[in-house]
Amino acid sequence: MEYETPLFFRVMQYADRADRDVIDMVSGNPDWEPPEALREGLGEYADLEPDQFQYPPSEGLHELREEIAARRNVDTEQVVVTNGAGEANYLAMARALERDRGDEVVLTDPVYPYYPGKTTMLGGRQRFVAADETGQLDPADVRDAASEETAAIVVNSPNNPTGAVYPEETIRELVAIAEEHDAILVSDEVYDHFDLSGRFASALGVDSDHRIVTNAFSKSMAITGFRVGYAVFPPHLVENAKSRHMLVNVAGSRPAQYAVLRALRETEPEYYEQSRELLAERVETFTDALEAAGADYTTPQGSFYVMARFEGYPGTLENVERLIDEAGVAGMPGEAFGDSRADWLRFALVTPRVEEAADRLATHFE
Amino acid sequence: MEYETPLFFRVMQYADRADRDVIDMVSGNPDWEPPEALREGLGEYADLEPDQFQYPPSEGLHELREEIAARRNVDTEQVVVTNGAGEANYLAMARALERDRGDEVVLTDPVYPYYPGKTTMLGGRQRFVAADETGQLDPADVRDAASEETAAIVVNSPNNPTGAVYPEETIRELVAIAEEHDAILVSDEVYDHFDLSGRFASALGVDSDHRIVTNAFSKSMAITGFRVGYAVFPPHLVENAKSRHMLVNVAGSRPAQYAVLRALRETEPEYYEQSRELLAERVETFTDALEAAGADYTTPQGSFYVMARFEGYPGTLENVERLIDEAGVAGMPGEAFGDSRADWLRFALVTPRVEEAADRLATHFE
Repeated sequence: MEYETPLFFRVMQYADRADRDVIDMVSGNPDWEPPEALREGLGEYADLEPDQFQYPPSEGLHELREEIAARRNVDTEQVVVTNGAGEANYLAMARALERDRGDEVVLTDPVYPYYPGKTTMLGGRQRFVAADETGQLDPADVRDAASEETAAIVVNSPNNPTGAVYPEETIRELVAIAEEHDAILVSDEVYDHFDLSGRFASALGVDSDHRIVTNAFSKSMAITGFRVGYAVFPPHLVENAKSRHMLVNVAGSRPAQYAVLRALRETEPEYYEQSRELLAERVETFTDALEAAGADYTTPQGSFYVMARFEGYPGTLENVERLIDEAGVAGMPGEAFGDSRADWLRFALVTPRVEEAADRLATHFE
Repeated sequence: MEYETPLFFRVMQYADRADRDVIDMVSGNPDWEPPEALREGLGEYADLEPDQFQYPPSEGLHELREEIAARRNVDTEQVVVTNGAGEANYLAMARALERDRGDEVVLTDPVYPYYPGKTTMLGGRQRFVAADETGQLDPADVRDAASEETAAIVVNSPNNPTGAVYPEETIRELVAIAEEHDAILVSDEVYDHFDLSGRFASALGVDSDHRIVTNAFSKSMAITGFRVGYAVFPPHLVENAKSRHMLVNVAGSRPAQYAVLRALRETEPEYYEQSRELLAERVETFTDALEAAGADYTTPQGSFYVMARFEGYPGTLENVERLIDEAGVAGMPGEAFGDSRADWLRFALVTPRVEEAADRLATHFE
């Protein structure tokens, strides 16, 4: 079996090896401070008794699950703490496919490339529905694509790579379509704290046995390397997901869970607000510079990403590598996200040097 | 799809809820100190710059892979750092099964119950080969069971639950059998630092493209909750395993990897020696008390476990729960490890109270 390996790591490696200063706008790694309580929690954990260094409960530290459940207004038993949103999406998609109700997974184009990769690995088939130019998804198009063969519909709002935030009506319709076909809506909401539009709607707001919501603290707490995420399952789907989690990973890493629990309890809303404001400023700075350079670009409603198009410079891996060498800016090739964005490049706004990056791009393409 | 959920967590929960003092001998959670450098590494990590809190390389921190490769005398590229031995075994078994060379997985009876659970989850079929009364595996029996249908042979030495340590001839023969049938020997060596016999032989000692070795720092560093393990693949099998690891988990938890790297570099052989001596003392204390109580028991050559049999008290879950309530000792039901040990109970020597536990058992059964 061959999988499609996401290109992220390949581009990052190329940028690391470049023989010049490169502004890294490849992956969604926040460059800002984690919550202070997270550092304190980890430091405190390092001195605990040995019994605290042993297996946590497989489904996650109970108090962490309780904190998550209280915030999401669900039952603690519905929450499985995972190794980041990556494992949460894997468990959710596996759960949808193993019900033997079809093997198609409806995905968007453009798409976050891990989703089609996971689909292949799990023995499913991808069916793509095109988003519009702004990244919005028309539920009517999803309804046309859905059928008895549909096991899951996987969406991501705020969206990577388009920056689109789906309105509540879209989420409500997607749940309804999943219900009509006995499929599962998998709603990956990992950028929920980075909604710049005020329109974000969680799929948990729609009561249904046909949706699984995935999330993580990777972005909201600026700790993509800690690998603490979670999935919220309908009650009748949670047990087998817990079994799969146990059989694959036994449990998630306890020091990371402990630190996140501490941070979740003690971090004030201002922390998240400041991260969002920082991002909003960078969006403005970067898009202003792109505008001045005469490039096409998207203005994200949420998430970390701006897509840009430079005339005669399609978003291929080769062009991304040339841009690293010649302009000192590393982005992601649009083609990694599907045919519809093959002319585009994606830039993650996770560096204080967004203005310099835009200037370098303007100089390079002028 | 239904999986067999390992009973470990169920028994531990029952013991936790018991209305009396219970000596916990259920799971293989060391009760001794981790290496000092591990605590130091974690404390140091808590104060690093934010970029150190982001995604590590998917296959693990490069320096950690180098340290592992140097110790195991393999190429760094063959090493994938995993979320504990649990994920390492999952990746290894998935890799063996997805080659489309048969769907049978040869396992031992008694067996560590995660292996048959993973087999079912991965769409394979179990075929059990009985170990002898001492836990040794006769390669001739494995050869009889192996066929074109064999995708993998999964073994564990030092063994959980029997305490057997396979001699080098056995390992050599198992590799040869895997080669004869184009199958993969998966050798789980997580207890390698707890060989009390001096006879432990790693499958890495047999040069072959048909064996994958899995391991973890969970037991050797007394950190089952950190979830840092690894698998060593033959060069032609490693790429797809890395892809699966990426698609399931993206990466392992970085604070845990950082702390393990520090501990791996700075921990002297005396640390491991002391853990082994502690275990050897406990084996003697516990088996002496069982002997005095007239019970049947096994004396482990390695790993953490003693199996004991009390007349008229088979190793069922019900009897384990009765023993928690009535004797205040929590073990594992032998039936969890397969039919051949259904009359037995397994006790993990991970408590300073092994003598008291044995006395409680003697009193209860006298």
